[in-house]
Amino acid sequence: MSFNTFGHLFRFTTWGESHGPALGATVDGCPPGVPLEPADIQQWLDKRRPGQNRNTTQRNEPDAVEILSGVYEGRTTGTPIQLMIRNTDQRSKDYGDILNTFRPGHADITYHQKYGLRDPRGGGRSSARETAARVAAGGVARQALGTVAHGVQVTGYMVQMGEKTIDRARFDWDQIGRNDFWCPDPVAAAEWEDYLTWLRKDDHNSVGAVIEVVARGVPAGIGAPIYAKLDTDLAAAMMSINAVKGVEIGEGMAAAALTGRDNADEIFMGEDGLTYSSNHAGGILGGISTGQDVVVRFAVKPTSSILSPRASIRIDGTPTEVVTKGRHDPCVGIRAVPVSEAMMACVLLDHILLDRGQTGGARGRIG
Amino acid sequence: MSFNTFGHLFRFTTWGESHGPALGATVDGCPPGVPLEPADIQQWLDKRRPGQNRNTTQRNEPDAVEILSGVYEGRTTGTPIQLMIRNTDQRSKDYGDILNTFRPGHADITYHQKYGLRDPRGGGRSSARETAARVAAGGVARQALGTVAHGVQVTGYMVQMGEKTIDRARFDWDQIGRNDFWCPDPVAAAEWEDYLTWLRKDDHNSVGAVIEVVARGVPAGIGAPIYAKLDTDLAAAMMSINAVKGVEIGEGMAAAALTGRDNADEIFMGEDGLTYSSNHAGGILGGISTGQDVVVRFAVKPTSSILSPRASIRIDGTPTEVVTKGRHDPCVGIRAVPVSEAMMACVLLDHILLDRGQTGGARGRIG
Amino acid sequence: MSFNTFGHLFRFTTWGESHGPALGATVDGCPPGVPLEPADIQQWLDKRRPGQNRNTTQRNEPDAVEILSGVYEGRTTGTPIQLMIRNTDQRSKDYGDILNTFRPGHADITYHQKYGLRDPRGGGRSSARETAARVAAGGVARQALGTVAHGVQVTGYMVQMGEKTIDRARFDWDQIGRNDFWCPDPVAAAEWEDYLTWLRKDDHNSVGAVIEVVARGVPAGIGAPIYAKLDTDLAAAMMSINAVKGVEIGEGMAAAALTGRDNADEIFMGEDGLTYSSNHAGGILGGISTGQDVVVRFAVKPTSSILSPRASIRIDGTPTEVVTKGRHDPCVGIRAVPVSEAMMACVLLDHILLDRGQTGGARGRIG
Amino acid sequence: MSFNTFGHLFRFTTWGESHGPALGATVDGCPPGVPLEPADIQQWLDKRRPGQNRNTTQRNEPDAVEILSGVYEGRTTGTPIQLMIRNTDQRSKDYGDILNTFRPGHADITYHQKYGLRDPRGGGRSSARETAARVAAGGVARQALGTVAHGVQVTGYMVQMGEKTIDRARFDWDQIGRNDFWCPDPVAAAEWEDYLTWLRKDDHNSVGAVIEVVARGVPAGIGAPIYAKLDTDLAAAMMSINAVKGVEIGEGMAAAALTGRDNADEIFMGEDGLTYSSNHAGGILGGISTGQDVVVRFAVKPTSSILSPRASIRIDGTPTEVVTKGRHDPCVGIRAVPVSEAMMACVLLDHILLDRGQTGGARGRIG
Repeated sequence: MSFNTFGHLFRFTTWGESHGPALGATVDGCPPGVPLEPADIQQWLDKRRPGQNRNTTQRNEPDAVEILSGVYEGRTTGTPIQLMIRNTDQRSKDYGDILNTFRPGHADITYHQKYGLRDPRGGGRSSARETAARVAAGGVARQALGTVAHGVQVTGYMVQMGEKTIDRARFDWDQIGRNDFWCPDPVAAAEWEDYLTWLRKDDHNSVGAVIEVVARGVPAGIGAPIYAKLDTDLAAAMMSINAVKGVEIGEGMAAAALTGRDNADEIFMGEDGLTYSSNHAGGILGGISTGQDVVVRFAVKPTSSILSPRASIRIDGTPTEVVTKGRHDPCVGIRAVPVSEAMMACVLLDHILLDRGQTGGARGRIG
Repeated sequence: MSFNTFGHLFRFTTWGESHGPALGATVDGCPPGVPLEPADIQQWLDKRRPGQNRNTTQRNEPDAVEILSGVYEGRTTGTPIQLMIRNTDQRSKDYGDILNTFRPGHADITYHQKYGLRDPRGGGRSSARETAARVAAGGVARQALGTVAHGVQVTGYMVQMGEKTIDRARFDWDQIGRNDFWCPDPVAAAEWEDYLTWLRKDDHNSVGAVIEVVARGVPAGIGAPIYAKLDTDLAAAMMSINAVKGVEIGEGMAAAALTGRDNADEIFMGEDGLTYSSNHAGGILGGISTGQDVVVRFAVKPTSSILSPRASIRIDGTPTEVVTKGRHDPCVGIRAVPVSEAMMACVLLDHILLDRGQTGGARGRIG
Repeated sequence: MSFNTFGHLFRFTTWGESHGPALGATVDGCPPGVPLEPADIQQWLDKRRPGQNRNTTQRNEPDAVEILSGVYEGRTTGTPIQLMIRNTDQRSKDYGDILNTFRPGHADITYHQKYGLRDPRGGGRSSARETAARVAAGGVARQALGTVAHGVQVTGYMVQMGEKTIDRARFDWDQIGRNDFWCPDPVAAAEWEDYLTWLRKDDHNSVGAVIEVVARGVPAGIGAPIYAKLDTDLAAAMMSINAVKGVEIGEGMAAAALTGRDNADEIFMGEDGLTYSSNHAGGILGGISTGQDVVVRFAVKPTSSILSPRASIRIDGTPTEVVTKGRHDPCVGIRAVPVSEAMMACVLLDHILLDRGQTGGARGRIG
Repeated sequence: MSFNTFGHLFRFTTWGESHGPALGATVDGCPPGVPLEPADIQQWLDKRRPGQNRNTTQRNEPDAVEILSGVYEGRTTGTPIQLMIRNTDQRSKDYGDILNTFRPGHADITYHQKYGLRDPRGGGRSSARETAARVAAGGVARQALGTVAHGVQVTGYMVQMGEKTIDRARFDWDQIGRNDFWCPDPVAAAEWEDYLTWLRKDDHNSVGAVIEVVARGVPAGIGAPIYAKLDTDLAAAMMSINAVKGVEIGEGMAAAALTGRDNADEIFMGEDGLTYSSNHAGGILGGISTGQDVVVRFAVKPTSSILSPRASIRIDGTPTEVVTKGRHDPCVGIRAVPVSEAMMACVLLDHILLDRGQTGGARGRIG
């Protein structure tokens, strides 16, 4: 994790700006022999792609990925995989107003303060458009997981929009792909639809969200204490996504309110191996996977680019009011769902490789 | 961040087990010429030290730090600083019962699964005793901050124990050092005292907590997008602490419930530079510091080692009940306070060095 | 230095194969505000470009670089710079013969052994074509050096071809650019021309070379002991170039034959600062620059792809004779000259940034 | 490789100064379950230990290693291994003369220039005493190789002292341990003995050396192009050793004089697998091991601390003559032999772990 690179053994470096000619990910350390073609990656990019419905930005980008290296005759060669996505629908004139102004709650001001200059077109490097590159890298990770850890499944979904949460009693995995919000609760999804329409059209506002991402089928023993714990790297992975302000593993912040007796996931030996009475731990103990579902949750703040005026200053220090026109997501959390899946897949693959590097698959027997 | 090493330019590697002869931190990349003697570090270790009152483990460790390298005539030389703390009060027999048993909610089982063997004495490497080494490294970071970023102040405190939260209206910085809980609200502190005594003596139980740590005086422009963002590294830093299950920056998980209008920290030009209407962002935008207070919060789960029986299995797969005697913290969150301060100090110093490496202190002017 | 990434703070990751659609370098950690346009990079690529004269491969590649990110209005923004070079003159059919055969002395066999598959077209990732990406990255490093360490000059030249060495008495900096061999001795250059023509046309053979690369104007105090010494990183940099088998700093291997009295570079205080009686050290003591010229030398083995038959085996283990047609450099050392300059520039910039990160430019005074 | 840390997955960080209380290595990433006790390490330290005969420094250090962490009941646990060696025979007064003076050819001056201060006692961090920590880390690597790559043997020896080289016709592996110089040629060893005695006693001088280190039994397929090639990391490993000025793989610098026809290691299929007609490559092609012996050679310059006067300056810039008394090695190359073995062992283990991390042991079949 250094500047624009993520990962230990399976590493990717993302590059590109919102309104430059292209963006992408340089993926290094992928195992050799993994079947990979553009369609394997495209399917995930299509989930994240903007302009698909009225609830996300109207910027219309095909987000077509090109594999420029690292694959020969449909299989990875173990050398770097360059994934490039061209930008096609830049409208930089939309941003003329903010060239010399800082949107409150946006990275405009901090990039300017740090670097002394910034690419203001569409937020430049700080744009959530960077996350397309992560999704592409995540597509490679998923293919590789299919080879090295068959059975791992990663699924993200939204559990809260603004103050409106799902009802866990109505949780249905099959609903997740059937609405614009990756929402497992169809009743909530319908409510969110109305709320977001009002927020966008009438209130000229935006709203935050909570996303949960679950990995099933993760083998026990993955993770590397003390500073490369599985939960440490997952926290870093999610917090690195634009607009994320909180990350939870298992019980998360609610763990504070529990007692040790309540929080204990009791252990039993079942017919097919270990079972647990509960999963407060979110599948991770001491930074290492238990074999239970790995459960991560994170909060996305509301988009700072809104049509409602907010007080700010210009680069020369004079006061102004900022109203952001352009094309923006009223709830950027929606598109964070496939991004979080990609980051989860990358972290898991990376740790599976790290583990087999150090331990060679040595495992302690139980029973 | 690789295995047992934390940091980019200012890096430390911790080593040692709960019941081995010693533990410590190998600190690399410290600026030269920083005044440093053992007392500069000892003051922070004394805050974390066990056995100081009845609310923490009764293991009595002096936690005296020795500086074995990297300092000449009271100043750092720019070469690695080895900080060693001897273990003196090991009572490994206390752990005889758990040699072949796994405590529910503890890393016992995952270390066994991953490595095929584990040091069971006091939890070995997974013990919170490792955090003494972080506090020592943090002591070095604080001294260096005094040289390279004079004015940075890092303060941690507990804001919630179990279900009992502080009243922010009673927040008093001066109270933090005056009770056993680093609690800024004296009324809450008194309540917690009674609650914890009951929990420990009568209920044979433990409880979780929420800690907040604030850095004041951090200059704007610190942080390195995209995967070494200041908030990303802070999330990793806190999540790497034993028992932490959630991390928040600024509004944290509550940001999900806000709208863009409410969440905007409006910007004004004051007489002494920039001011903001609020600090929902927790001092970080786009991964880079704004110059406001950097605010991080995290939840610690309840200690899994409790006197109440919990169902588990032995290494041979047979069922058992686990009751952990030994000496344990009823609320391990208390001692997490100085640990979180140390981690914050290390992250800030590391990013200040990274920033001056890349930008040389170049800054964008406003006004 | 991890897999396909080089550098600490100024880092680049190269990607791409000899016969894929493109190759390039993802450059991260560049200081912001550095003037950069394609022409600044193209000038160095043009030096390395194949097909320029009869002494290098006849593959005709324009090696035109595109800057896809990290630059705004002609200046670097501090975010990743993607440099892409399209391959245009692939003739993969030339390599049909070696699909299932291993060239002696070539990486064909080890890539196959390691990865289980390889891209055989033009050597795939193991082709010296990868070095175009390094030269591009080096072009960025040179521009940045112009900003952060004005006055550093990096110059490479060939001092030996086969058994024929230059005469140091005829050394002339101005000659370096005036012949096909970057040779500072015009007499040697003329001899080499004849020799190489014979070797290529009549002898169907290839030959090795020694290149020297010198950096003038490097400030004292650059380098980071113990495992990121300036000479350590330079050795790694040069040894990572295709076909390099030996690296020397200053006296190099010849230092073994010297006594301490002869090897001592005596120190004097001149009117303009320190002067030395000699530079056996090659400008580096204890891994840190002295302010003298940094002098590195390395040997390149002869190209293994030759028209003369050599005994080998096929992938099925049966014996065969290999004669490599294709288009190859009779002395790959020629094109290694601009590559070594690029690597030197990258190492110097990286260490200058590292140094200002750790020390902030603190320096010990003398006199 | 960052500051004081070496390695990718198997990493060690060395710490400590020549005249501080102790020095050591923090070893991280060791596979679990490796048998390890102090004697396994001590045997290698005893080879490097000073004061053993009149040809090395008379400083008398037992170099007894203590294992402070990472081992439980005689086996590694997969957590960091702290190896500490106490300094016992410091005589810092010997160095009083050089407090304010810079030895020509020594790191005294560059440490001062870089850091603004230095620990002058015995050269502080720049002392070759640091190499004891590498030898200790190498002892761990050798034990681990015994577990993960049984059959790898690493042997170093001296092939040149000053201008006197061994006669390869008299090369005898069994002689290596039978003289003070790790010399495989008994005739050369006897000559060197006389030469070094004269040099030390009569000439008050020192001399350089060439060491060769060979690893037998390395499996094919180890190494990771492009910037973590096996030869790249070996070059870095050897160049990081004090006083090393040149590194060669296989033919090394002599490869420049060869033609492609002569340099080709022809490949045959023997009864027990691949065989080669020669090993010009030194066991590495394209950065990846071929299965042949890995052969590395390096030159050590003469010790700069000699009894003969050399011109230099004081810290205040005034001229002086330096005569170094203290206790120094007349040929520091002798003790570099066990150090180079340690570095070779560490690099090999690290790359074996890296390889199984990425490829999981996937291998291309031949025949």
